[in-house]
Amino acid sequence: MTVADAVSLDRADSLAFARKRFRLPAGTVYLDGNSLGALPVATAERLRATVEDQWGNDLISGWTKHGWIDVPKRVAAKLAPIVGAQPNELLIADSTSVCLFKLLGAAVRARPDRRVILTDARNFPTDTYVAQGLAEMLGLELRAVAAAELAAAVSDEVAVVTLSHVDYRSGARNDIAAINLSAHAAGALTVWDLSHSAGALELALDGTGCDLAVGCCYKYLNGGPGAPAFLFVAERLQAELQPPLQGWMGHAEPFAFDSEYRPGAGIVRFLTGTPSILALAALEAGLDTFEGVSMTDLEAKSAALSQLFIDEVEARCGDEVQLASPRDADARGSHVSFAHANGYAVMRALIARGVIGDFRAPDLTRFGFAPLYTSFVEVVRAAEVLAEIITDRSWDRPQFAERLSVT
Amino acid sequence: MTVADAVSLDRADSLAFARKRFRLPAGTVYLDGNSLGALPVATAERLRATVEDQWGNDLISGWTKHGWIDVPKRVAAKLAPIVGAQPNELLIADSTSVCLFKLLGAAVRARPDRRVILTDARNFPTDTYVAQGLAEMLGLELRAVAAAELAAAVSDEVAVVTLSHVDYRSGARNDIAAINLSAHAAGALTVWDLSHSAGALELALDGTGCDLAVGCCYKYLNGGPGAPAFLFVAERLQAELQPPLQGWMGHAEPFAFDSEYRPGAGIVRFLTGTPSILALAALEAGLDTFEGVSMTDLEAKSAALSQLFIDEVEARCGDEVQLASPRDADARGSHVSFAHANGYAVMRALIARGVIGDFRAPDLTRFGFAPLYTSFVEVVRAAEVLAEIITDRSWDRPQFAERLSVT
Repeated sequence: MTVADAVSLDRADSLAFARKRFRLPAGTVYLDGNSLGALPVATAERLRATVEDQWGNDLISGWTKHGWIDVPKRVAAKLAPIVGAQPNELLIADSTSVCLFKLLGAAVRARPDRRVILTDARNFPTDTYVAQGLAEMLGLELRAVAAAELAAAVSDEVAVVTLSHVDYRSGARNDIAAINLSAHAAGALTVWDLSHSAGALELALDGTGCDLAVGCCYKYLNGGPGAPAFLFVAERLQAELQPPLQGWMGHAEPFAFDSEYRPGAGIVRFLTGTPSILALAALEAGLDTFEGVSMTDLEAKSAALSQLFIDEVEARCGDEVQLASPRDADARGSHVSFAHANGYAVMRALIARGVIGDFRAPDLTRFGFAPLYTSFVEVVRAAEVLAEIITDRSWDRPQFAERLSVT
Repeated sequence: MTVADAVSLDRADSLAFARKRFRLPAGTVYLDGNSLGALPVATAERLRATVEDQWGNDLISGWTKHGWIDVPKRVAAKLAPIVGAQPNELLIADSTSVCLFKLLGAAVRARPDRRVILTDARNFPTDTYVAQGLAEMLGLELRAVAAAELAAAVSDEVAVVTLSHVDYRSGARNDIAAINLSAHAAGALTVWDLSHSAGALELALDGTGCDLAVGCCYKYLNGGPGAPAFLFVAERLQAELQPPLQGWMGHAEPFAFDSEYRPGAGIVRFLTGTPSILALAALEAGLDTFEGVSMTDLEAKSAALSQLFIDEVEARCGDEVQLASPRDADARGSHVSFAHANGYAVMRALIARGVIGDFRAPDLTRFGFAPLYTSFVEVVRAAEVLAEIITDRSWDRPQFAERLSVT
């Protein structure tokens, strides 16, 4: 397929309207929205208004006049249709790591006779660090097994199973419903990390029996660098769980200034300290880019984009690169990795020609397809540039050998 | 003193230049900078540039091109002269509550044979909630005593002493150096909460033997609503302490994606997840309002402002209000509370006449003096308005009886 051919795919794209909601740099094919989502057109003005009109003019009265106190719940409600949950099951505040610590801590406290946190041996590293820190503090065991063995490894020793929905390297999906079923059959809870799927795939947290989940808002959710994260607690579990990180925002009466902690009813008890109102304003503009978007259509477009990329790369590059992602779109997230012995230099060469993906050691070039704004033309163009680099062996050039250091 | 008399005090104020760095609403006397600092003139443009020029144009490469990875350390370095610490002893990230949890968790881990967290019975409530949550999770005892008895209450059972430098109601100061000495003599560590003093008083964290400290950046530090907090770890303690909340930003090699956590050297190991780069950009503009400001001069101005307010209120209102703060400026922070049986309605009446303070149950009207931008004219004007309200018994009016709900 040529770039010209891909134009007709973009013309037929029922989600093409969403691309206009982003300010994409000219001359760049951005295939790293899975690391940092692109800037929505609305964000700058939303922040200006929050800073100048709310904070500047109204100062402390912003807490009541502009409802800042409810912002973590109000903004999270916009995420509900994106992840298939009820609005009262979601909050946005703190980093993904801090949210994960809260939920893992609440889960092990709810299973005091069980001493094991079970995880995928290839889980996202920072999630493993969080679990290691919690396990060490509480004298628990963090047990890591291959993802395929997780369901069989849940026993009555296991308090909680924690893993990512989509692997950050290969893009391979774990089966949420199946692992939840296995965990529940053994009496364990689950905590999912949805960082690499929320905003690209159709999720049904309630429909697949999820207990607890966290996710990053600066990838497919377009909240900006370091945007606060989300957490999900199924309504049926909210009354019995209590996170170890408790603060005034989670208190039953935050303005009573009681000296005793009394957890609020419902999801609010999972809040801790005051979240950044400015960061949440930017994130709200990110979530607004999903307005009117069917998640079924979005996942279908994600699959079509990544499938086209695989087909075009393999047709042009042959066995010079090796697909390191599942070939079946239903088994993939919204990014695709190809292995190449000089993958690091290949990615540097791509970036130099305006195709922005990223690299994961030891040899993976990774390409993310953000279906809200990535076009079919861009996918074909990226495959073309990759083929040019493979053909002219650009990775041999010294300027591409410097150490890469992006997330 | 009349408002006209106070003009000459403002003319003689060596810090008057700093007021121009803020955008203060016309017609308002803002005496709540101790809850939410005023908006710096530079903030909006700093945020616009971070959003549009950095995120929008450079996308993922912002992490390297704009040094986002170092922002928590780089911005914290601007706080070093404000709190009397070395730049390598400070970080900015997460909320105050999360920072406190990290430091208390690290402290109790460093004293495994001690089972008590000692605190002020009238500590700021959210700090108490954090300590309660940690103690409950670890089976420790949270012991609360009156502030005056803290030094005597430190025993060899105590792992850590935690309290606020300045009481959020009365403004009474605790003696940092003396309590540190008592704690150290008994082998305990200290964690100070500097939320109500950083940016208003002259602090010397290193000079007064502090071990650990946290503080809020949206009060006197002008970082905006919910700005990320700071934490301090004395250099001598950094190698031996490890917080329970560990994540990729604190790893020795954050981009190596190791499956084992290896803490970074120095202060960096106290980072966890990715902080909001946008919130940090706003906070940096807040800290820049301190450029060229002597902290000795700033504390002197704070004392002069609060002393003038006490004198003027007592001269005008007599015993209709009762001073609920220390009379000696050296024993006070930068806010002053007066008790009045109808304090809630009195504060509503003040706000209705453009004097913004706040109320703390059961009967305290609280007035904060942010010495970077509060003027002597404003102090006299606030005392005048308070006296008018006392004279005409404004608190009897029904419109001032509605429940107040600001922090």
